[in-house]
Amino acid sequence: MAKERDEKAITTRSQDYSQWYQDVVLRAEMADYSPVKGCMVIRPNGYALWENMQKALDGMFKQTGHVNAYFPLFIPMSFLSKEAEHVEGFAKECAVVTHHRLGAVEGGGVGPAPDSVLEEPLIVRPTSETVIYAMYSKWIKSYRDLPLLLNQWANVVRWEMRTRLFLRTTEFLWQEGHTAHAAHEESWGEVTKILEIYRRFAEEWMAVPVLTGVKTDAEKFAGALKTTCIEAMMQDGKALQAGTSHDLGQNFAKAFDVKFQDETGGWQYCWQTSWGVSTRLIGALIMVHSDDQGLVIPPRLAATHAVIVPIYRDEAGKAKVLEVARALKERLSASGLGIVLDDRDTVSPGFKYNEWELRGVPVRLEIGPRDVEQGVCVAVPRVPTRELREGEKRQKETLALDGAPEHLKALLDDLQKALYARALQFREEHSYTIDDYAQFQADIEKGGFFWAHWCGSGACEAKIKDETKATIRCVPFEAKKEPGACMVCGAPSEQRVVFARAY
Amino acid sequence: MAKERDEKAITTRSQDYSQWYQDVVLRAEMADYSPVKGCMVIRPNGYALWENMQKALDGMFKQTGHVNAYFPLFIPMSFLSKEAEHVEGFAKECAVVTHHRLGAVEGGGVGPAPDSVLEEPLIVRPTSETVIYAMYSKWIKSYRDLPLLLNQWANVVRWEMRTRLFLRTTEFLWQEGHTAHAAHEESWGEVTKILEIYRRFAEEWMAVPVLTGVKTDAEKFAGALKTTCIEAMMQDGKALQAGTSHDLGQNFAKAFDVKFQDETGGWQYCWQTSWGVSTRLIGALIMVHSDDQGLVIPPRLAATHAVIVPIYRDEAGKAKVLEVARALKERLSASGLGIVLDDRDTVSPGFKYNEWELRGVPVRLEIGPRDVEQGVCVAVPRVPTRELREGEKRQKETLALDGAPEHLKALLDDLQKALYARALQFREEHSYTIDDYAQFQADIEKGGFFWAHWCGSGACEAKIKDETKATIRCVPFEAKKEPGACMVCGAPSEQRVVFARAY
Repeated sequence: MAKERDEKAITTRSQDYSQWYQDVVLRAEMADYSPVKGCMVIRPNGYALWENMQKALDGMFKQTGHVNAYFPLFIPMSFLSKEAEHVEGFAKECAVVTHHRLGAVEGGGVGPAPDSVLEEPLIVRPTSETVIYAMYSKWIKSYRDLPLLLNQWANVVRWEMRTRLFLRTTEFLWQEGHTAHAAHEESWGEVTKILEIYRRFAEEWMAVPVLTGVKTDAEKFAGALKTTCIEAMMQDGKALQAGTSHDLGQNFAKAFDVKFQDETGGWQYCWQTSWGVSTRLIGALIMVHSDDQGLVIPPRLAATHAVIVPIYRDEAGKAKVLEVARALKERLSASGLGIVLDDRDTVSPGFKYNEWELRGVPVRLEIGPRDVEQGVCVAVPRVPTRELREGEKRQKETLALDGAPEHLKALLDDLQKALYARALQFREEHSYTIDDYAQFQADIEKGGFFWAHWCGSGACEAKIKDETKATIRCVPFEAKKEPGACMVCGAPSEQRVVFARAY
Repeated sequence: MAKERDEKAITTRSQDYSQWYQDVVLRAEMADYSPVKGCMVIRPNGYALWENMQKALDGMFKQTGHVNAYFPLFIPMSFLSKEAEHVEGFAKECAVVTHHRLGAVEGGGVGPAPDSVLEEPLIVRPTSETVIYAMYSKWIKSYRDLPLLLNQWANVVRWEMRTRLFLRTTEFLWQEGHTAHAAHEESWGEVTKILEIYRRFAEEWMAVPVLTGVKTDAEKFAGALKTTCIEAMMQDGKALQAGTSHDLGQNFAKAFDVKFQDETGGWQYCWQTSWGVSTRLIGALIMVHSDDQGLVIPPRLAATHAVIVPIYRDEAGKAKVLEVARALKERLSASGLGIVLDDRDTVSPGFKYNEWELRGVPVRLEIGPRDVEQGVCVAVPRVPTRELREGEKRQKETLALDGAPEHLKALLDDLQKALYARALQFREEHSYTIDDYAQFQADIEKGGFFWAHWCGSGACEAKIKDETKATIRCVPFEAKKEPGACMVCGAPSEQRVVFARAY
């Protein structure tokens, strides 16, 4: 058993943050490496979290008038090379389909059949703007067809050399919204409406505080007028871009001829937006909340809200405890909670505690013979929801079995809030106002968000990135206007922006 | 307007069944052709149906202990070519990825970058047995890990030369279940359990009656011991395979080394199953229920259950009617129904009737000034739920506004049943018991299911297929044992099998 424990031990965050993350993902069976380099397998524990994320987001998209559709996986090469013709040294890492048949090849074995070469190679979609707007050009005729508010849940592929489970993989899952409007005012309204949905989802569901703001020209989506984003801080002080909402202006409308006839009969180009979040959010969630014991999942996104661990010493006790534990499971499940009763005989209660903590189940309910007599169970939240009392090693709450669903729901609510508060406190403790560039160069090593003045020039931005690997995460909406001087060149600045190293 | 109507007219079924189908799909905006040959775009009307199908099936899978996961889009070529090494003249139509970068090419323009050739080409999954079982081989160690009951919702690609929206496209969406068990008895139990879920889904949700049975060796999935299926009859009398559940035996377990240690410590190969249904179901649903007016959607799968069309002649009437119509919409929506109020001023009620019939909305609710006075509305089901009374051209029911949600739900239930009954009657009227092969050769032209004796030989099966294009759809579970003689060779047969031409 000792050996088994060692194999399953998780590297601590302070030992090696990156290895800790990988250990948590693999040991909690969230994902695994696949036989294809750079592609991951999302295991049931990870996928259940993604399903809950999808459900919450999809509900918010639909409430605001969006509908789902599905567009092809493949994009004709010419759609992407339009862009390339104007760009010197163009190169795009992507999966290129060149043949449509496998067959026997000369000299034995199997390979792409030489007589099956495609006239035009196909690209596996890295994002779907081009193929979707080719359809919009066909569908949109009149102002009556606007706004067109579509979303797609799909897989996309970007050939990545250095990959990390959930955070950066060759294939990942995401949603991409694509809307078309009659006026820029309306499309900008859409951009900010979606960003607000992303912010609410991150903060209220994932319990991850985020900054909202605008990307600099160097960091924005190449096809956009403006890219807005939500940015979160991980426990190593690095930033993670958790979602983007783009104001595309009329750029794509002009390239793909997406036009409408207005009320006066004149033809105008549409104003468009696109926006997306991906399975990367799972990586963010893990990096923000989890600890050296393993995964921590916020209750609102958990598939399993509580695990019941029965405790007994003999067969008589077992029968009595299991009967009450089963009834408890039934009542809690009936109230809409995801409940597991771990009645395995082959492992000890302590082993079970560790295993369910590793998997991030929000609350453990322990129930023994004395609890049964007193009509209670002991609830242990995965992370304390209050300051520990004197002498307490872990928070333990005694819950009356009578009214257990309400008690447990209240505890889950507290836990959701506690996780958010803890993450917010961490971010505040690792956010700095800084004016001196030499100081910044030294301090950036310890991680965190640095609020600094910047003149707005690409040159200063590039210099900082070269010298410190820090990028401007966003020009935050919430920053006060405050005159100052660029920390690099001293030129005037109107507000501080946020620098950090990022995933 | 006349011109607009003509452009939108649907070819009738009797004129050209195949063109009728395409017209319905395109005009009802269920799907569209994409810029990539053979790939379709699923438009919001079609995707909403797929979402409801997913929800119903996913619920049934989860109720029976299955969980979802996600496996990579790409499969190493070697995984597929294992099979090829033993097959002379092996050829597989599939999308082959050979490069990982687009770049500038000699002579100008953009193409697959010559220095980005993959060491091993990747295949876009046509189905995921191989890549999933490579993971199972890693995950499954002991009998305690069994049964492993996973499902995946994903896109797959099979290079198709002749495509038809929903029915046969290069890319399509599906679910594929993959399970591993400790004994053949258990895996066979899984195969039949899933087939029963498919049957229930087809009959109770899609209102499509299906035969269940076993495929012949010529028609089964190559890697399976046995393929079971559900088969439905379209309105042209052709069969459509609507779902399959495969008993894989230990075939893949041996190829991919999927083994477990049993309770005695010995190593055994797992017994596996796989099963799937796809967006093809949407094609089946359309072909079974729709008519020359357009789409017909069974209420249990409809996103919009009823459309309210207000009728008025003047502004005073309009105000009065719209007020009641809005309140009606609110009450119906609050009871969980999908309701649209079509209050457009720019088109006539008659235009609206046609449009919503084209889109297959199950019930139309008409409400005019006199209805408002009487506290009623008039409900017109998309397809009659009873014999029309003398003098009636369409079924019209007067529903009291008081209790409208219950009245409408009852009407929707009746419609669901009526659609199933009508489809079942159609199938029975086009099912024939036949013993004479010459007669069969003549009759197969008119379409339908032909219950005939067959000796079990591949030779007779192939001869029939060559001469009539009819295949054995299944050896039905529901057929009585009945001794007879093969209609081709006269050899003895134990039961009739079902022949038909198929999609």
